[in-house]
Amino acid sequence: MTADLTARLRDVVGPAGVVEDPAGFLTDWRGAYSGTAAAVVRPGSTEEVAAVVALCRDLGVAVVPQGGNTGLCGGAVPDASGRQVVLSLTRMRRIRDLDVANSTITVEAGVVLQTVQEAAAAAGRLFPLSLGAEGSCTIGGNLATNAGGTGVLRYGTMRDLTLGLEVVLPDGRVWHGLRGLRKDNTGYDLKQLFVGAEGTLGVITAAVLELFPAVRSTATAWVALPDPQAAVDLVGVVRGSAGDRLTAFELMSRQSVDFVLRHGAGVRDPIADVHPWYALVELSDTLPDAGLEAVVEAALGESVERGVVTDAVVASGSAQVAALWALREGISEAQNSEGPSLKHDVTVPISAIPAFVAATDRALAGALPGVRVVAYGHVGDGNLHYNLSGPQPRDDGAFRARAGELSRIVHDSAAAFDGSISAEHGLGQAKRDVIADYKSPLELELMRGVKQLLDPAGLMNPGKVLPG
Amino acid sequence: MTADLTARLRDVVGPAGVVEDPAGFLTDWRGAYSGTAAAVVRPGSTEEVAAVVALCRDLGVAVVPQGGNTGLCGGAVPDASGRQVVLSLTRMRRIRDLDVANSTITVEAGVVLQTVQEAAAAAGRLFPLSLGAEGSCTIGGNLATNAGGTGVLRYGTMRDLTLGLEVVLPDGRVWHGLRGLRKDNTGYDLKQLFVGAEGTLGVITAAVLELFPAVRSTATAWVALPDPQAAVDLVGVVRGSAGDRLTAFELMSRQSVDFVLRHGAGVRDPIADVHPWYALVELSDTLPDAGLEAVVEAALGESVERGVVTDAVVASGSAQVAALWALREGISEAQNSEGPSLKHDVTVPISAIPAFVAATDRALAGALPGVRVVAYGHVGDGNLHYNLSGPQPRDDGAFRARAGELSRIVHDSAAAFDGSISAEHGLGQAKRDVIADYKSPLELELMRGVKQLLDPAGLMNPGKVLPG
Repeated sequence: MTADLTARLRDVVGPAGVVEDPAGFLTDWRGAYSGTAAAVVRPGSTEEVAAVVALCRDLGVAVVPQGGNTGLCGGAVPDASGRQVVLSLTRMRRIRDLDVANSTITVEAGVVLQTVQEAAAAAGRLFPLSLGAEGSCTIGGNLATNAGGTGVLRYGTMRDLTLGLEVVLPDGRVWHGLRGLRKDNTGYDLKQLFVGAEGTLGVITAAVLELFPAVRSTATAWVALPDPQAAVDLVGVVRGSAGDRLTAFELMSRQSVDFVLRHGAGVRDPIADVHPWYALVELSDTLPDAGLEAVVEAALGESVERGVVTDAVVASGSAQVAALWALREGISEAQNSEGPSLKHDVTVPISAIPAFVAATDRALAGALPGVRVVAYGHVGDGNLHYNLSGPQPRDDGAFRARAGELSRIVHDSAAAFDGSISAEHGLGQAKRDVIADYKSPLELELMRGVKQLLDPAGLMNPGKVLPG
Repeated sequence: MTADLTARLRDVVGPAGVVEDPAGFLTDWRGAYSGTAAAVVRPGSTEEVAAVVALCRDLGVAVVPQGGNTGLCGGAVPDASGRQVVLSLTRMRRIRDLDVANSTITVEAGVVLQTVQEAAAAAGRLFPLSLGAEGSCTIGGNLATNAGGTGVLRYGTMRDLTLGLEVVLPDGRVWHGLRGLRKDNTGYDLKQLFVGAEGTLGVITAAVLELFPAVRSTATAWVALPDPQAAVDLVGVVRGSAGDRLTAFELMSRQSVDFVLRHGAGVRDPIADVHPWYALVELSDTLPDAGLEAVVEAALGESVERGVVTDAVVASGSAQVAALWALREGISEAQNSEGPSLKHDVTVPISAIPAFVAATDRALAGALPGVRVVAYGHVGDGNLHYNLSGPQPRDDGAFRARAGELSRIVHDSAAAFDGSISAEHGLGQAKRDVIADYKSPLELELMRGVKQLLDPAGLMNPGKVLPG
């Protein structure tokens, strides 16, 4: 069966389209999820994607779409059956069009995010999606997971940046929805179905994305805060005066920064004293001399007087800016040096962050005294990466054994504050079952109805998103 | 049957919920669409809406949701059968919550748009949706039609401003999706189905909407332009330097302005010479002294030198600003004084506007020499209201007889430039059939599949959106 399948796939995509050594396509980049596959194909065009999907449908074979394979929930990794076909979009990497006057770029699903950023910059524009994996994640994966990152506060998620899509449906037909329009109210907005569906409703092959004016000046500040309430107050004050200039507001607990200072190379504490919380605040402007330092200093000065801010430094020069961002971006890797990490990606309403942090900290300390909470994230979006390291001295096995229970505490707490258990990482296979505990039966029924409508045979990325 | 239905509806919504004199609910505000109804009900709560919908489903009676009745496509008007129930949301007008720290407001469907704007302003925030009918249109109608208006360039359409929804499904069950989260990737984003569906998939009863920082300074300019290409160039130049400060960019042909000058009260031409096109450019900022005049003057000065701008005035003082906006906002009414108006609401990619205008003007002049094109709209969104008045001397009957043919020319031209025949007004009953000529069979099939999934009995606003 596999030999026959491979031969028929080769007929469709040519020899260059069938991967001989599939190892890199069967395990996610972190090594957290692994599977096997009947075949791994890399079609070179929309027509080839459609032909692969149609062939698999005829044979009753499941298809697992895959982009840069940088997902955090196993959404692009095949199961262990060896009967699924991995469909990698990485050969579809053409920039089909860049329309400066329309401020849009049309790209294929396999284009790397950073390539889009660079193409926009070369045309004097900004593509604002920015996240850790931007050097290897693909636009198709960004669309399938409705990616977020640090720029959501101002520019929204991938969904907000998407004007049009081209999609291969589960039956192999192509929906041509590559429109570059900012307003189009002619019936149901079908593209919304596919963004964030993690490849369970079809294969996105291309997209029209919105570009923005290039940024010509920035100001970056590192702010010491007494508690999360101060962060919520500060984001209100800064956004109230700076408005759209506020393009990033990242919160970090002292524990998070401590790990980076301990394990990172060439990092140092920007403020000598120790403080319980920090914010990294970034302002951007399209004008070259926008006076952003004055804007951020005025907001911070007012906040110091009101006791919201304990201390602050405004970066001068790109080296200092890079050093501040290194503290934020180094957290995830630094935490890995402290033993197993238990990662979460929750949102709550911004106003609920202080109570959420207090309640969750308390519940976790009760369940596992000494547990180290590594809380950080995008406060302007209400999004916290509420990660855990085990108590010291380390007992990795004991900590791992408690993982389910501890995650349940974090998720229950997010739900209690009307939050979400997956802000920007999606469900994939990691959270497909647990989500059933947090969605109403009606919502699950509607989701299953949409799945049944578009993929009645259940062959598009089965085992992902929808609870079993 | 009607007497029995009315009695049973009264049991559900109480005497105050059944309208005795339904005249105002059976005809749209312009008087363009009229129908009759078995009953008009005004439920006072989500539970009552659900009970009305469930009762109608049990009886096989169609439901026509209605907000402020200001739509332009007849989407909220019942048919002529006298068998439909109009469900007016106008008694559901509670502001349920305003969360300043989360920058969100939770409102019921019947709240008037202007009331939301005022509530936001009272809390030091901005709700940016703004359109001509804002004093009487409702949030539910804005959601059902994915309303646009003048602020889309910066803030997006109603869809972009919506974080959560509460919806009564066609079977009478309530979907509680009133989340105030900016990131939530836990499966299919169901709220996207209902926004823009014009009440054909369920009844939106409440929403969580996003608020923005209050605007504290503005600058407004009136710009004379040689042609539409200059407008496209200018929007790029101004947006490139002013960035998010650019919150409105309205284009008007001389014909449009002429009509206002002829029929408007107390209006005058801001620039003595006659020019073929004008733009109304508005910059906004959250800072009180943002130097916006200097920003817009620099962009205009550069554009004058490059021959893009012929002449320009920057308004000084709120009276001048109001006078400029009166020219823009008076077009629709002024055109009515010139005989029947044939209205269109198209989008094309911004870059295609010049070629679209040239080709459409040419085709119209060929079909009906002397036809007067009243072209104006939101250039930053690629959205033109490409309206027509008949030749002079007036022969209203002859012009009306050509309406279908002339609209076909405008729509075909928009489609030829990869545009849309309904940018922000929706389809309603006006364009439900004509849309079949501009959508692929696959797209229509998918739309019908979604309809069948959510409303298998076809009782939610039948005869709207989907082609017969």
